[in-house]
Amino acid sequence: MTGRVYGVGLGPGDPDLMSLKAHRLLTSARHVAFFRKEGRAGRARVLAGDLVPEGAVEFPMEYPVTTEIPLGDPKYNEALAPFYETCCAHLRALAQTGEDVVVLCEGDPFFYGSFMHIYARLDGDVPVDVVPAITGMSAAWTATGQPITWGDDVMTVLMGTLGEDELLRHMTAADALVIMKVGRNLPKVRRALARSGKAEAAWVVECAAMAEQTVLPLADVPEGYMPPYFSIVLVHGQGRRP
Amino acid sequence: MTGRVYGVGLGPGDPDLMSLKAHRLLTSARHVAFFRKEGRAGRARVLAGDLVPEGAVEFPMEYPVTTEIPLGDPKYNEALAPFYETCCAHLRALAQTGEDVVVLCEGDPFFYGSFMHIYARLDGDVPVDVVPAITGMSAAWTATGQPITWGDDVMTVLMGTLGEDELLRHMTAADALVIMKVGRNLPKVRRALARSGKAEAAWVVECAAMAEQTVLPLADVPEGYMPPYFSIVLVHGQGRRP
Repeated sequence: MTGRVYGVGLGPGDPDLMSLKAHRLLTSARHVAFFRKEGRAGRARVLAGDLVPEGAVEFPMEYPVTTEIPLGDPKYNEALAPFYETCCAHLRALAQTGEDVVVLCEGDPFFYGSFMHIYARLDGDVPVDVVPAITGMSAAWTATGQPITWGDDVMTVLMGTLGEDELLRHMTAADALVIMKVGRNLPKVRRALARSGKAEAAWVVECAAMAEQTVLPLADVPEGYMPPYFSIVLVHGQGRRP
Repeated sequence: MTGRVYGVGLGPGDPDLMSLKAHRLLTSARHVAFFRKEGRAGRARVLAGDLVPEGAVEFPMEYPVTTEIPLGDPKYNEALAPFYETCCAHLRALAQTGEDVVVLCEGDPFFYGSFMHIYARLDGDVPVDVVPAITGMSAAWTATGQPITWGDDVMTVLMGTLGEDELLRHMTAADALVIMKVGRNLPKVRRALARSGKAEAAWVVECAAMAEQTVLPLADVPEGYMPPYFSIVLVHGQGRRP
C-alpha cells in the first residue's frame, strides 16, 4: 500500500478560512512537511498552528537561499534544484512505506506556490493530491471592502520582481491589478503605477486575513517604507455595474 | 440590534472545499438569500444543498434577465438595477429587524460575483460582512493537475464576452490565462487563442470541483461544441522553475 502526498492549501492566514477538507487532512495527519527559511518557524507551519496533531512527525524543508540571490540569477536555481530533490526523496520514501504526508502550503498550492516544485518531481512516482485554497489575493481584496472586478474587467496578476517597464505595460493594459511579492520592490511598483496613472487608485494590504492585517491606500504609505515580502498591492476594476 | 448581511462565498462546488467560516454561517443560518434564474433551482442554492438548516427562511432573488440581453446593451442594466434595489430593500428590512441573513455566493463574492451589486447598495445602511472563498479558477487549474503559474509568470483573467481583438491583445501579453464566461463564446475564444499561438496549450474545464467535472485539452473539444456558461479555459504559465 503506497501512501499519498497531499499538497494542502491552508489559505491566506485565518484558520477559519481553511477548507473543511484541508482542516480534516491537517488535523488527522501523521506526517507533516513544510518549507521554511533556516532559523525561522515557517509561515505555513505557523498558520497550521496547533491544528497539527500532537505526535505528528514534522519534516521542515529549509530553503538553502530565499531572497539573498536574485531570482533571475542561475545560482538561484542551482541552489534550489538539489534542495527540492532531497525533499522529494524523503517524501517519496515515506509514501513508499505506506505513510500519507501532508505538505502545508500557504495560499493555493498551484498559484505561485513552492509546492509545485515538489509536485512536478513526485508526480507519477507516488500518488499526489492537491487541495486548492483561498488565495492571499482574495483575502486582500476582501480586506479592502471593495470588489476587485466588475462585469468584464480584465484582471492581471503581476510579481513585484518584474522590471519597471514590464510592470508598466501590463498595468496600463488591465482594469484590475494584483501585484504580489512586493516587499522591497514597492518603490519600483509605485513608479510603474504612477506612470500608468493608477497610483492614486492603489491599495497596499499587508498580512491579509491575519491578526496583523493592515490596509492602506498606497498614497498614505510613506515613500521609503518597505512592507513585508508577501504584501499585496491592488487596483480595483471599475467595470460595468447595474 | 441591527442584524448583519453576510456575503458568503461557498467556493467552486465541492462542499468539502467550503471554508470552516462559510460552513458555520450556512449551517446556523435563519435567513438564506440567493440569486437564481426564474424556473431554476439556482447554482448557489444547489451548492449549499442540505447544509441549509430546516426551517431557515429562503429568499430566492430571481434575475429578470440573464444572457438574453447582451451585457453591453443599456437595457441589461435598466432591467437589473431596479431588481437589485428590490432585493436590497428586503435584505435591509430583515437586518433592520435584527435578523442576520446569509447571501449564498458561488466562488468568491468579490471576484466577478453578483453579490457586489448587493454589497454596493447596502454598505453603510446595515453591517455587511464578506467571506472570501476558493474561486472556480483555482478548482479548474487544480483539476488540470498542473500549476497555473510559476516564478514570475504574468497571469491575466479574461471574460469570454470580450471582443476577439481585445482577447487576442491580452492573450499575447500574458504568460498564464484564465478565460471565464466561456459558453457560447468558445468559438471566438478559440480563434483568439489560435491567433495568439496558445490554442495548443489551452484546456477547457467544465463544472470544476463538481461531480460532473470534465477536463479536456481545447484541441480535443469539437469545433461546434458549446460548453456551459461557467466553463473555464486555461493556459498554464511555463515560468522559471528550479
